[in-house]
Amino acid sequence: MTISAENSLNLIAVAKKTRLAALKLAVLSTEAKNQAIEAIAQSLESAKDEILQANVADCERATTDGIAKPLYKRLQLDEHKLRDAIAGVRDVGKLSDPVGAVQIHRELDQGLILKRVTCPLGVLGVIFEARPEAAIQIVTLAIKSGNGVIFKGGKEATRSCEAIVKAIKQGLSQTAVHPDAVQLLTTREEILELLRLDKYVDLVIPRGSNSFVRFVQENTRIPVLGHADGICHLYIDKAADLEKAIAITVDAKTNYPAACNAIETLLIHASIAAKFLPKVAEVLGKLNVELRGDERTREIVPKIATATEEDWETEYSDLILSIKVVDSLEDAIAHINNYGSKHTDAIITEDAEAAQTFLALVNAAGVYHNCSTRFADGFRYGFGAEVGISTQQMPPRGPVGLEGLVTYKYQMTGNGHIVATYTGADAKPFTFKDLG
Amino acid sequence: MTISAENSLNLIAVAKKTRLAALKLAVLSTEAKNQAIEAIAQSLESAKDEILQANVADCERATTDGIAKPLYKRLQLDEHKLRDAIAGVRDVGKLSDPVGAVQIHRELDQGLILKRVTCPLGVLGVIFEARPEAAIQIVTLAIKSGNGVIFKGGKEATRSCEAIVKAIKQGLSQTAVHPDAVQLLTTREEILELLRLDKYVDLVIPRGSNSFVRFVQENTRIPVLGHADGICHLYIDKAADLEKAIAITVDAKTNYPAACNAIETLLIHASIAAKFLPKVAEVLGKLNVELRGDERTREIVPKIATATEEDWETEYSDLILSIKVVDSLEDAIAHINNYGSKHTDAIITEDAEAAQTFLALVNAAGVYHNCSTRFADGFRYGFGAEVGISTQQMPPRGPVGLEGLVTYKYQMTGNGHIVATYTGADAKPFTFKDLG
Repeated sequence: MTISAENSLNLIAVAKKTRLAALKLAVLSTEAKNQAIEAIAQSLESAKDEILQANVADCERATTDGIAKPLYKRLQLDEHKLRDAIAGVRDVGKLSDPVGAVQIHRELDQGLILKRVTCPLGVLGVIFEARPEAAIQIVTLAIKSGNGVIFKGGKEATRSCEAIVKAIKQGLSQTAVHPDAVQLLTTREEILELLRLDKYVDLVIPRGSNSFVRFVQENTRIPVLGHADGICHLYIDKAADLEKAIAITVDAKTNYPAACNAIETLLIHASIAAKFLPKVAEVLGKLNVELRGDERTREIVPKIATATEEDWETEYSDLILSIKVVDSLEDAIAHINNYGSKHTDAIITEDAEAAQTFLALVNAAGVYHNCSTRFADGFRYGFGAEVGISTQQMPPRGPVGLEGLVTYKYQMTGNGHIVATYTGADAKPFTFKDLG
Repeated sequence: MTISAENSLNLIAVAKKTRLAALKLAVLSTEAKNQAIEAIAQSLESAKDEILQANVADCERATTDGIAKPLYKRLQLDEHKLRDAIAGVRDVGKLSDPVGAVQIHRELDQGLILKRVTCPLGVLGVIFEARPEAAIQIVTLAIKSGNGVIFKGGKEATRSCEAIVKAIKQGLSQTAVHPDAVQLLTTREEILELLRLDKYVDLVIPRGSNSFVRFVQENTRIPVLGHADGICHLYIDKAADLEKAIAITVDAKTNYPAACNAIETLLIHASIAAKFLPKVAEVLGKLNVELRGDERTREIVPKIATATEEDWETEYSDLILSIKVVDSLEDAIAHINNYGSKHTDAIITEDAEAAQTFLALVNAAGVYHNCSTRFADGFRYGFGAEVGISTQQMPPRGPVGLEGLVTYKYQMTGNGHIVATYTGADAKPFTFKDLG
């Protein structure tokens, strides 16, 4: 990808416009933002035919271009999907406003009051592949959290995205939110350029393949919300209830194998491997799961393929599962901390102490005991919406709801207070009184 | 700087050792960590003479090398400074434990319980110039927050740091904290290498000059806690109380000009400039503050130098102040959002609405009304300790206390719960009940 100077200047102009609109959006009341969200829902309803026609055109073009089937399914937007997306818009309207929450309210001294208050991040850069209805969701979440948004959909979905954004901007034009708060980029060259706008864009949210997310992470100085890999583990402890172990293995692998919270590797304590492995292999075999085992696994279930070093590092996103026999809880934890992607890992055991050790020592955003890794999801956590799942060490970590789209600032109000009063020999002490 | 392959391998080995020790430290009780902190204090007391002698050697060497005077002052560690640093160790012992705080405790369904619990980050990389006693503070904060720490002091302070770390490790050797949790690097080459260890180091904390911090930020993929610039503004509104305005200007500029929270630029509303400028110029002149003004400022106080574009972007860290006359609150906010470093900016006004607008629209970690920017400090905010001040947009932002050294994980406990139960046609609803 190369960028012409002209393109670059255009994008900076777009970003500045977005920032200006976002600055006004940032201070709107919850009511004003909710009115804008309802206007978006209504405008999308009115533009339904236009959006669906644009999508048909995108789909026809994609078919001509020989698009892969799963991608085609993600691209396709029927009346049902669109209705659901519009219902989703109204659901976001009902969520509580993440802006303006007072996290700290403290008297430092008489008349000197410190507050820590949540506020919007500013401008979000959102880049995703295919699924056009994702645009609807992300714009709504951005407005609810008081942020401007510059986004780039997959090139297959260009017409659909254009129709959607046109409707959204039309809806906003009658509200307190300036339509400039929402911008659509349409050329692929603009992705790299967007990633360079660290002066104008505060957070990048990429949605797409692992390699795409990694590309974004490696090509920007803007913070990135998301994760490249989801290499989740399930460890079957020696004190596991085998019935739970099988049910959870099946759920975590087969419920939705393409999801990032599906497991890729099963670790089994040596002392129960002979009992558990044949059973689980039979069940998974019936569900068409391809198994790949280490040497000790293959001694017990010899018909399966050999797992190599590469398997422990692979997110299959498919009905494939690697299996390793380990000698201890400690070995299981060491394997996970070495090969895992800090997403979600689970232990199956009836031994409370072993569970506690696992939950404490496994370094991941989610550490589970006797339940499926598939619960790692913002909606299932009760956040009402999910803007992404982060596998970084620093917060926000794990499934991130609307709170991931806000930051905070410290507001201090005094009445002529100066620091000289509180330093030196006659320093006045602070009162540090937390207020209600 | 070039790095030999051998050096690189050595450092990875050191980092792995630190991680292992940190993993054990992460799960220690508050009592065990506090015992380790007390052991450090006692060991430093016992090693007092050795540390002070090492510092004398460092100082002699620095004098021979012709070190700059302010740097020499920072390098020098006398009995008084060391006693204060050891008292600081015991103060950290008294702070509440940032680890293990339950931020979310929620029933998703009967028997399926989600908790969000704070936990240590893992391993901190700390790089600072000169001040050897900073090592004492940062090691103590790391242990209190359950983190391992690899640090590199200024090369001038090598002997002092070695003596300090020797004493710290000696103290730890009798406690539950393995001495490997604390590592000292001694060669300059190791800085770049440390910055590349994103697999082993979770957070980098640089302390030093602006250019040094910027170098660190631009040469690592590890999150950095800190800030390069502190370009703070004071805006004197048309409705300002001039007495407060002068007192706060003097405090914010002269109380400690080298501090990042000192102001660099004064913005003055045009309608009060003629009244305010001569007064403040006279007071600041007596305090040896060099003033640099824009054209409109120089029309009122003609004797001062001309401020150029460069001045608005400069952190003087000295008794220099740039001054600009603006036509409105909006112009002041626009100047700050354009030239500021998102550190701390203040408005002086008796107009509550103007204050509210300023606090809402200025994009900075700290936005103040009628008080000095010099209050931007973790101790003054009541955090008990400060690990750095962040000017990033994402949290942690502003002065960061111990909470900046921890992250969180989601712990989920079930009893065989699988996601299939909660999806599809007969999906069971979640209960989402927040628990006490």
